[in-house]
Amino acid sequence: MIYYFDNCATTKVDEKVLEVINQYHTEKYFNPSSLHGWSLAVKKDVDASRNTIKKCLGFSGNVLFTSGGTESDNLAIFGSMRHGGNVVATMVEHSAVYNCLQSLQQKGVTVKFAKTFDDGSVDVEHFLSLVDENTCLAVCMHVNNETGAINDIKGLFEGVKRINSRVLCFSDGVQAVGKIPVNIDFLGADLYSFSSHKIHGTKGVGGLCVKNGVRLVPQNFGGGQENGLRNGTEYVGGIVALATAVDLACKNLQTNVENFEKYKEIFKNAVRDLPDCKIICQNNCSSAILTFAFANIKSEVLLHMLERENIIVGLGSACSSKYKVSRVHAQLNLPKNYQEGLVRISFSKYTTMEEVEFVADKLANTVKALRNIIGVRK
Amino acid sequence: MIYYFDNCATTKVDEKVLEVINQYHTEKYFNPSSLHGWSLAVKKDVDASRNTIKKCLGFSGNVLFTSGGTESDNLAIFGSMRHGGNVVATMVEHSAVYNCLQSLQQKGVTVKFAKTFDDGSVDVEHFLSLVDENTCLAVCMHVNNETGAINDIKGLFEGVKRINSRVLCFSDGVQAVGKIPVNIDFLGADLYSFSSHKIHGTKGVGGLCVKNGVRLVPQNFGGGQENGLRNGTEYVGGIVALATAVDLACKNLQTNVENFEKYKEIFKNAVRDLPDCKIICQNNCSSAILTFAFANIKSEVLLHMLERENIIVGLGSACSSKYKVSRVHAQLNLPKNYQEGLVRISFSKYTTMEEVEFVADKLANTVKALRNIIGVRK
Repeated sequence: MIYYFDNCATTKVDEKVLEVINQYHTEKYFNPSSLHGWSLAVKKDVDASRNTIKKCLGFSGNVLFTSGGTESDNLAIFGSMRHGGNVVATMVEHSAVYNCLQSLQQKGVTVKFAKTFDDGSVDVEHFLSLVDENTCLAVCMHVNNETGAINDIKGLFEGVKRINSRVLCFSDGVQAVGKIPVNIDFLGADLYSFSSHKIHGTKGVGGLCVKNGVRLVPQNFGGGQENGLRNGTEYVGGIVALATAVDLACKNLQTNVENFEKYKEIFKNAVRDLPDCKIICQNNCSSAILTFAFANIKSEVLLHMLERENIIVGLGSACSSKYKVSRVHAQLNLPKNYQEGLVRISFSKYTTMEEVEFVADKLANTVKALRNIIGVRK
Repeated sequence: MIYYFDNCATTKVDEKVLEVINQYHTEKYFNPSSLHGWSLAVKKDVDASRNTIKKCLGFSGNVLFTSGGTESDNLAIFGSMRHGGNVVATMVEHSAVYNCLQSLQQKGVTVKFAKTFDDGSVDVEHFLSLVDENTCLAVCMHVNNETGAINDIKGLFEGVKRINSRVLCFSDGVQAVGKIPVNIDFLGADLYSFSSHKIHGTKGVGGLCVKNGVRLVPQNFGGGQENGLRNGTEYVGGIVALATAVDLACKNLQTNVENFEKYKEIFKNAVRDLPDCKIICQNNCSSAILTFAFANIKSEVLLHMLERENIIVGLGSACSSKYKVSRVHAQLNLPKNYQEGLVRISFSKYTTMEEVEFVADKLANTVKALRNIIGVRK
């Protein structure tokens, strides 16, 4: 029995999703680019998946299928640099976005970083002050993957377009889709990325929503799939599974959110009596993410203590776990003794109340125990 | 019942491969970039897969996992352009290679195309005459995906290195791995690409072999996976499945080749009495591919006639099926009345003798019938 509370890093595949994908491995395994009828049928399944996702995400544009969130982010950013210009973004983007921006900087593109608040949410006013007539791309994640803060994407992108209507507005929605209500047309995003394995689909598949009229520069070359915008044989099973995962996540959203809010309360209650403990995002957060900062605790030690109890929690982004001080955590204005003590708890539809109660208790007690050890050593 | 003879386009997933991949969907679904023990275990599985593949393919360098053959080809080509220089290649490469080369040309890189013979194999002497001190990359596919011709990669790359030892030598091995013996160290390739779904693995996964000492320029940015050379959460299940597929294909190679050679003979016998029929590759061909050119036949019509009998054959590359006259077919020096009549038959381990006999007979009879119709119309 594993207590899995790192659902922001990745999720278990849903049995229904698995049933779908397995059909495409041994029955409908045809290459959608071939010309015979069975291939045309799987090609239709890919297009039907596109339509399912468009409907779930309130989007009237096109959906491109990619190998995951990282490829979607790369395509959105580099694909937008057709005519040059400056880029405005935040410092707390996921590394799949931030490292693309760094690459642009190395190529001589001006990238301006807007301030963020202590919960990792964007300072909209400061962001807008950086947008000018030469801005070509505005980048802001929908939900922060390390803190759960939800950004006001609609307000931000409306403001951007008021200043310069030619700016392409891109939001990384990897931690938003299936976790909070998402209506991309309403948000006013030109580009919006998402991933399958964060919502009980499989790894190796993601999507990029591209508003009608937006002309991306292709970032790879090959057989002309996805209208030449993303070449390579379509991973049909993974794509249909992604659409199934998005559909399930959207249909169960209300129920999941209600459960997750209850889980959050249990965790908050468990640490209520612990001194020197901060909850990073207090208002307007994803219900699926709860990030604590514990003073005088090294989160890596805490993680390994919990691991002995078969409890898995996160340290922040799995994708930045190699780096000692997280770029994102450094933006949260935490007192120095809190900076290494961040722990991210993230829920899924498979999380149960019993698990939450067990883990919340263990978390609080382990923090206490660790502090006692430190106390003794002093 | 479908008679599937288009195994160069894609293949049915092996049941053993399916068992492997499914473990990673619902049990070992962890993100290899996380820091807990279960993640480290799946990371080890990824590395074990790398070692399996290295052993099967006689390779002492590194294996990078990608989303498929197309991404591997793109990474090999664009990743090699660190210092500039000219590129030597053939005109008959797969579109995932050729269209990268075209993109390089558009950026001002000189790409020189070597002559090929009538079976699509490279004219080694002419290729070598194009290599000079400014050449940075030599590109030649191992097995031609439309004709089955096997190139003398060892001889070619040895010749290239003799002229200029700094040239990176890249071979697209997508139609070679699992179909003919492959020993990459012996071949002398610096870069060698392959795909999973061509050998009963899943779509959405491929690999690029990178010789020790070769420093590729990363083509995407993100969480630093695959030593920063291919960013994005590893598709662990797909990767372990790929290693399983490569292992199975290499172990069964001898048996498969023996069967395929028998199948080829049946097909050749079936068309023996048909006038105006050419077999494109006669010597040194992959046993898995047999390409016919029928005079005065439109292969698309033939394909649809066979489809009525539940027979699936190929027209050439699925990835270039959109284009009326294949770039590759145009290089085969066929008389004009043969040019639109190419049909590719490709086998897999699931092909049976009964299927071959049925399809070979139907193919010959359908060509006869089509010619009769044309005769009547004249």
